[in-house]
Amino acid sequence: MRVLGLDIGGANLKAVWIEVVKGNIVNCQTTVKYLPMWRGGKDRLPVALREVSDVLSQGELPDAVGVTMTAELSDVFESKREGVKYTLQCVHQIYNDIDPILVVDYNGEMGTIKVAQRDSLRYSSANWAATAKILSGIFADCLLIDVGSTTTDIIPILNHKIATEGRTDMDRLATGELVYTGALRSDIQSITHTLPVNGRETEVAAERFALSGDAHLILGNIMPEEYSTETADGRDTSRQRCFARLARTVCADPEMIGETGLTKMASYIYDKQVDKIYRRLMNVLSRLSITPREDLPVVTTGLGGLFLGRKAAYKS
Amino acid sequence: MRVLGLDIGGANLKAVWIEVVKGNIVNCQTTVKYLPMWRGGKDRLPVALREVSDVLSQGELPDAVGVTMTAELSDVFESKREGVKYTLQCVHQIYNDIDPILVVDYNGEMGTIKVAQRDSLRYSSANWAATAKILSGIFADCLLIDVGSTTTDIIPILNHKIATEGRTDMDRLATGELVYTGALRSDIQSITHTLPVNGRETEVAAERFALSGDAHLILGNIMPEEYSTETADGRDTSRQRCFARLARTVCADPEMIGETGLTKMASYIYDKQVDKIYRRLMNVLSRLSITPREDLPVVTTGLGGLFLGRKAAYKS
Repeated sequence: MRVLGLDIGGANLKAVWIEVVKGNIVNCQTTVKYLPMWRGGKDRLPVALREVSDVLSQGELPDAVGVTMTAELSDVFESKREGVKYTLQCVHQIYNDIDPILVVDYNGEMGTIKVAQRDSLRYSSANWAATAKILSGIFADCLLIDVGSTTTDIIPILNHKIATEGRTDMDRLATGELVYTGALRSDIQSITHTLPVNGRETEVAAERFALSGDAHLILGNIMPEEYSTETADGRDTSRQRCFARLARTVCADPEMIGETGLTKMASYIYDKQVDKIYRRLMNVLSRLSITPREDLPVVTTGLGGLFLGRKAAYKS
Repeated sequence: MRVLGLDIGGANLKAVWIEVVKGNIVNCQTTVKYLPMWRGGKDRLPVALREVSDVLSQGELPDAVGVTMTAELSDVFESKREGVKYTLQCVHQIYNDIDPILVVDYNGEMGTIKVAQRDSLRYSSANWAATAKILSGIFADCLLIDVGSTTTDIIPILNHKIATEGRTDMDRLATGELVYTGALRSDIQSITHTLPVNGRETEVAAERFALSGDAHLILGNIMPEEYSTETADGRDTSRQRCFARLARTVCADPEMIGETGLTKMASYIYDKQVDKIYRRLMNVLSRLSITPREDLPVVTTGLGGLFLGRKAAYKS
């Protein structure tokens, strides 16, 4: 059996190709295509779907397709409902011969495209539930911290069940189960409103001059090739450029602060970001009768899983 | 004498045409052209300079040109130095027959293009000094609060002199004399990291989903025609659209919160923005031996002067 899994995000289209023979996975390949919805990605989605599937399957058709998405949140769509419908229409159009095509809902259950079109909010931004569903089969109790490029999901699993309080993104932002901070795309003002600069607490300019990826590259948390999103100024991901972008967040050129000073700014951003995840994590834990240190396994995943997720978990 | 004044910003090119006869202003006209530097505005600057001057002067040449700028801060330039040089080159190219062409520095003094090219950081983002210089001729002591679309300048004038502590933007961000918040272009996360939504403190999504202009339009602080910047989603400035953009800042559609709830969110943003200006204002005042309520005239100007600047001043 050959399964194609699609995670259709607002900035990246991710796909996995899995071949299963007699219950064993004999082949598993993944690919990621940068496809920003707000910048023409919406119109290019059908072609891009065809491309990622061709890359992985080399022309073969899968026996089943699984879909999860966050693309519908992009403001190229007037509502999430419109976004879910459009995204699923594109999938249906490309894979119209495949049966089943299944979409993940916010309980980690799968529904047909028809059902998902009807009850679209249930299928909006449910990618976190897909990961959690799999983990809930492995662990009775655990805490999943998935730190992606843009967002962090904090998902408790208790008694083999997803034990989140929120289901929609709005609810999860309120409960702390969705933290809008990530390893690459977070702009600095979303992490902190001030930075320590040349001995003074200095306000951050309210412009998208730099991203969390700049701080993490400067600190060696990521390599230039892992900086897979567009930079804030469209320039390259060299250390020099990261310093320049970071300096601009306080309206400065690098020589006004120096590399040592800029590295301290990056450290401060890193700490604030860990702290942001930690505070939300404590909110989530405050509902539960257990703490991670004592008896709860913590699974960290995603690009920032180790340097952001684990660090926040150690604090708790 | 006919003077052309140019304020070359990062998003807007503003121009004024003043005719003076025997010391009296007999004609004064202004124009604004939306010209985002980061979106092709850099290359279109020479043509745009020609256009605004043609609109105002109807083909006549001015006797003098005055220039101030913030465009050099845009990240299309690798450094402020490069930005100042480029901007002045464009001015020189278009008005090469005019003498004098004078540029405002951070003391409110004027220098030639040649001097400004050499000592570029002194001429970077000095538009606040131009306004302050004029006020310093009218008032011995006063406090200028200029709330534009993107930023707020807080400038004390004491004994007919500009009494700011900072000169560069970086220094002014540290002293509180430059507040990176404005009536239209500030994104919500730069104003507050959480919003009250349906009874819960909810994190704001770290995306540019809505701007301060959306909140101020909902609250009636600005009219749709005053919303002169590009909206966050590129859609129109109707109240309906502002509600939709604001809902998206907490990953919601409008029906999940309702217009009453969304209006409360807008009020909260407004208060937080006033508070941000107030806190910086108090920093600036803490250096001075006077308070505005007692004996210091406060001059508020700019699009947000009345509903943001004055409100912050009344708190102090």
